This record gives sequence, C-alpha cells and structure tokens, in this order.
Amino acid sequence: MTTRDLERTIAAIAPVDGARRAAAWARLDSLTKPPRSLGRLEELAAEAAAILGTRRGGKAVLVFAADHGVAREGVSAYPAEVTAQMVRNFVAGGAAVNVLARQLGIAVVVTDVGVAGDAPPPGVIAARIAPGTRNFAREPAMTTAQARRALEVGIAVAERVCRGDERGGGAALIAVGEMGIGNTTAAAALTAALLGVPVATVVGRGTGLDDDGVARKTAVVAAALALHRPDPTRPLDVLAAVGGLEIGAIAGACLGAAAAGRVVVVDGFIAGAGALLAVRLAPAARPYCVFAHRSPEPGHGVILDALAARPLLDLDMRLGEGTGACLGIGLVEASLRILDEMATFESAGVSTAPPPRH
Amino acid sequence: MTTRDLERTIAAIAPVDGARRAAAWARLDSLTKPPRSLGRLEELAAEAAAILGTRRGGKAVLVFAADHGVAREGVSAYPAEVTAQMVRNFVAGGAAVNVLARQLGIAVVVTDVGVAGDAPPPGVIAARIAPGTRNFAREPAMTTAQARRALEVGIAVAERVCRGDERGGGAALIAVGEMGIGNTTAAAALTAALLGVPVATVVGRGTGLDDDGVARKTAVVAAALALHRPDPTRPLDVLAAVGGLEIGAIAGACLGAAAAGRVVVVDGFIAGAGALLAVRLAPAARPYCVFAHRSPEPGHGVILDALAARPLLDLDMRLGEGTGACLGIGLVEASLRILDEMATFESAGVSTAPPPRH
Repeated sequence: MTTRDLERTIAAIAPVDGARRAAAWARLDSLTKPPRSLGRLEELAAEAAAILGTRRGGKAVLVFAADHGVAREGVSAYPAEVTAQMVRNFVAGGAAVNVLARQLGIAVVVTDVGVAGDAPPPGVIAARIAPGTRNFAREPAMTTAQARRALEVGIAVAERVCRGDERGGGAALIAVGEMGIGNTTAAAALTAALLGVPVATVVGRGTGLDDDGVARKTAVVAAALALHRPDPTRPLDVLAAVGGLEIGAIAGACLGAAAAGRVVVVDGFIAGAGALLAVRLAPAARPYCVFAHRSPEPGHGVILDALAARPLLDLDMRLGEGTGACLGIGLVEASLRILDEMATFESAGVSTAPPPRH
Repeated sequence: MTTRDLERTIAAIAPVDGARRAAAWARLDSLTKPPRSLGRLEELAAEAAAILGTRRGGKAVLVFAADHGVAREGVSAYPAEVTAQMVRNFVAGGAAVNVLARQLGIAVVVTDVGVAGDAPPPGVIAARIAPGTRNFAREPAMTTAQARRALEVGIAVAERVCRGDERGGGAALIAVGEMGIGNTTAAAALTAALLGVPVATVVGRGTGLDDDGVARKTAVVAAALALHRPDPTRPLDVLAAVGGLEIGAIAGACLGAAAAGRVVVVDGFIAGAGALLAVRLAPAARPYCVFAHRSPEPGHGVILDALAARPLLDLDMRLGEGTGACLGIGLVEASLRILDEMATFESAGVSTAPPPRH
C-alpha cells in the first residue's frame, strides 16, 4: 500500500452504468407481477444490477474497531475496555452482528484499526494505527498521516474481500459496520464539522446516556469544534481533528468497494458518518451506497438528509456493529433474486394487463 | 371438519403468556448489547417468544387463491384467468413469493379455495368451495354457509401445517398471503363494511388501475354496500355479502395458527382484511399477528390503524401473494436468533454499563 492508494482508488470509481439499469428495469417489467408492484425492492434490484452487472457472489460485513481518546470525557455509558472485549466476542461469534450474519450467510470480517490494549486475537485483521485516537477535547484525534492510513486500511480490506482473499470471498455485497466505545461522539463531531450543522442536532444518547450525559457530550463536541475549527472542505483534516480510526477505515472501505464495482450497504450513524466522509472525498461513490436503516440517533437523520438517502428499514436499531447493514444485505439479495429468478409473463404463460381503457 | 370447527378454534385461542414475555426481556437485557439497542427487533423477539415459548421449527407461507365475480365489473387491470395462471406459477416456483420464500427457507403452501376453471394442478391443496364468488355488485358474494366453509378451510390448512402434515412441517412462523384477480375490491368492501369508514378511503389502484378505474371501483363498492347493507357486528355476514373465499380462508388461517400458538405474519392489504375479520371474530387472535409491511393501498393503512398495528417494513410493496410476509418472517426469525444465539455479558466477559451518574 503506497501513500497514493487513496487518490488511485478515488480515481477508479466509475459512474454507475445507466444501460445496465435500463436493462434491469426492462426485465423487472417482464416478470409475473404488476409493474413496479414490489416497490423499493425493484428500485434496489435495478440499482444493484446497474452496479454489479451479472456479478453475484459472496456477502461480507466489514466491522472496523477502534478506541477513542474522547471516551475519557465521560461521553459513553460503557467503559472503553468494552471495545476490545467486543472484538473478542465478534471472533467467538456471540455478538449481534454474528447472529444476523449467520442467518443471512454473510461473512464477518473484523479489522482492528486502533483498539487500545493487548494485541488483537487471532481471526482479526491486525491493522492498528494507534492504540485509539487521542482525546480530541484537548488535541487532534490523530495526525493527517494517520487519517490517511485509516482510509487506506479500509481500502485494503475492501479490496481483499472483493478479490476473495478474505472470508466473503469475491463479495458482491459489502456491508460496513463498527465497534468503538465513544464513537457516536466522534461521529457527531465529524458530522457537525462536515455539514456545518449545530452540534445539538447531531448528538444523541449513543449506547444509553441519560440527559446529563447528553448535555456533557454536546458540550464536549462543541468545545472540540471551537478548539480545532476543522475546514469542512478538507475532509481528511476533519477526520484527523475529531474523527475516529474506524470511521476513516469505513470511509476507505466505501471507496474501495465502490472502486471495485460492489454494492456498499451502510449501517447506522457511525457507518453513515464514514460514508458521508467517503462521499465528500469522492462524490462518485454515492450511488454505490445503500443505506440500510434509520437509527434513532439524531445525527443519522442529518446525514441521510445530506446524502438524499432513504433508508430501507426503520426499526429503532442503534447498536451498530453492522447489524442493520446485515438486514439491509438481506433485502438487496432479495431484490437481486427477484430480478434473477422470477418467471416472465411469457415463460409462465400468464396474461399481461391490457392497456387501460379510455 | 365439522360445522363447529370455527367456534372450537376461536375458543382455543389462549391469552399470550406474560411470564414468557418477561423472561424473554430479561434474557434480551443480559445480551452483549446496550439494553433495547436492537429496537423493534427486541420487541419482536419478546412477543414471538411469549407466543412460542421454546418452540422454533419451520416456516411456511400459506397462499390462498380464489376468483371474484366482481372482477366482471372491470375493477382489475388484469383478466380473471390470471388467478389460475398464477396458481400454476406458484407450483412451478416462478412467482415472487417463491423466490423470497426460497431465499428465507420458507415453505410455500398453496390452497385453491375457489379458483374458476380447470381443476387445480398437483401440488395445490384442492379445497374449492365455488368457482369464484358471485358478483357482489348484483348478489351476495357467497352464502353464509360458504363463508363459514372458507374460514374452516383456512383453519384446516393452518392446523395441518402446524402439525407437520404439509410442507413447512410443524411451522412456528406462519405467513398468510393470497392471489385473486379482483380481490382488492373485495378487501375494500369488507374493510369499509367492518370499520364503517367511507368507501373512498379504502379503494386504491390495486394491480394498476388508472384514475377512471379507481372511480369505477369506488362506485362498485359503494353501490354493493348500499345493496347488501351488511351488519358490521356479524363478520361472517359481511364476508358472505362482499368478501372473498381466500379472504375468509386467510381469516381462518389466522385463527387456526393462533389457536395452535404460532406467530401469524400478515402480508398486505388483502391479508390484512383477512386478519381484521379474524380479530373481529376472535379479539384474542390479535396479539398473535405480526403485520409485515405497509402497502401503499389506502385501505391497508385504515386496517393497520384500526388494529393499532405498526408494520415492520415500508417498502411500497403492493404485490400480495405473501411477498411482504416472507420478508417479515425473515425479521421475526432474526429476532428469535438474537434471543437464542447471542452471548451474554457474563458468558462473553464483557463489562456492563455502570449505572448513570447523578
């Protein structure tokens, strides 16, 4: 991985193929159902087929884990040690993302991009850039070089999964999720900085803060933005100032998967912040992204609006890990199976609707 | 099947077990995730576990097909022969419900409760009560005895699937769907009659009517209700006057599955009208019903409001067949796997959140 991999990847993201999209719609309209009667499932099928062409293949959820110095400000309901504990839980198969991925036949690929403490357990991609970010309430979360490296870790993991070097080999559908105690604080700061919205509109309860906790978290984010004043036109600098290593890696994974021509299924608020960062770096990545669900975290709605995204699910899920994205992969797969497997009116001998009477 | 099977089944529907629900919540709160962070997935798990206890087992979608005399009034975009053609498509595995059921490991059980024309093909449960309903624009759709038989066909099919005599053997999760050209007209008439709402609020485009078609359909339903004046306190009489054989069978299947202690996953508008009929006959059946999705058919929203139901999905699906219910089964299964398979904080050695600071 050279220091130019970010620019090379961004340059490799092609426009989504409009002719493929039109061919998918023509086939969808020939299938044994009233035209467009599967609603958003048909829209998903057309978009996914426009991205993938005839490629199908595996499914993977990329979970990026890292710690956050800002957790020392009391912005999370959980202690920071939980990040490393949950990485072990992912490897053991006991976390929510493992359960949902098993149901749907999705490979779970866990990357340690910056967890504090002992070396990551076997089964985790070891790509630790630092033992967590620095506390951005006092100093920049990371250097610009580290921010770039976080993105390039995400690019590299996505490329390996797309090539088939990792579980989910040759995956066509790539979900992104995360684990990192304190990371809704980083996602909120990143979102407020990139979009120029008031801090109070993007700060929520995270894993379960009470009202005092939310007030403290809001004050921490507001003070950090006042301290660092990151330039929203320089996304890497925003990531370095107030972001997270796993958020950078998610952005990189979105770019890498888009460059490889895969569907990127984005989880909730933190993954959404990573996708927002990716789209700010490379607007061409936007059409590759499917937003799986709407989190009750207020910052997620702000991101979805900014990206003109209508999420597939609205189930009050706010766990992260890629849990919502796994369910989203299930829907994308359903849509592609409809496109691929349904009979046509002609093949099934079913009468089509006559033209409307006038 | 005796003529008292309907009353016996209604009497057999037990209240859902509150102790099981509480035990499910206690386990959900012990799992390695912030409490309630999986949102509606956790609510689903608690309700499904309250219904099922430790039973898991198979998954089935019951598709009931029948024709409608009212189709002769020009209320559908498709000719009536499509009902029988689609039944053959179901058996051949080429319809949308087949594709989604295959993805999710759901058995498709097709019952002909009143299709017009040739005898049903092999692979279909043959339970034809009449070759379609009569045209309720001119006379009652069926006799009260036929309405009762339609319900009892649904009860019998649900019981066979619950016992394991059909595909989906011993199913714990039972979805209900339908096929019948003209059946949004019957569902609209049934909904308006049972709920006493204006006809215009429950009539929609169905499989694709234009504005003239919707106006004609609205006039047909309004005239039929003025002709028959069914008594909303006598649900069987409403079914007989303006209902459909497959709608009656769906109501029966809801009752049969509830009596057997299974989760009933209800598809869109027409299946919703069947569930509404079931709940009017047996209010105790309501908590067994999960409403899979919200159809854009306006009458569906009226039914969901009347049943205080919040559907799981909102994907603009309006195909029927049980397609939305298959996706709903996938979510119920996901919720139960979360309950059953996730590690606890204790088993995984993950730190719990300290109590909030004050």
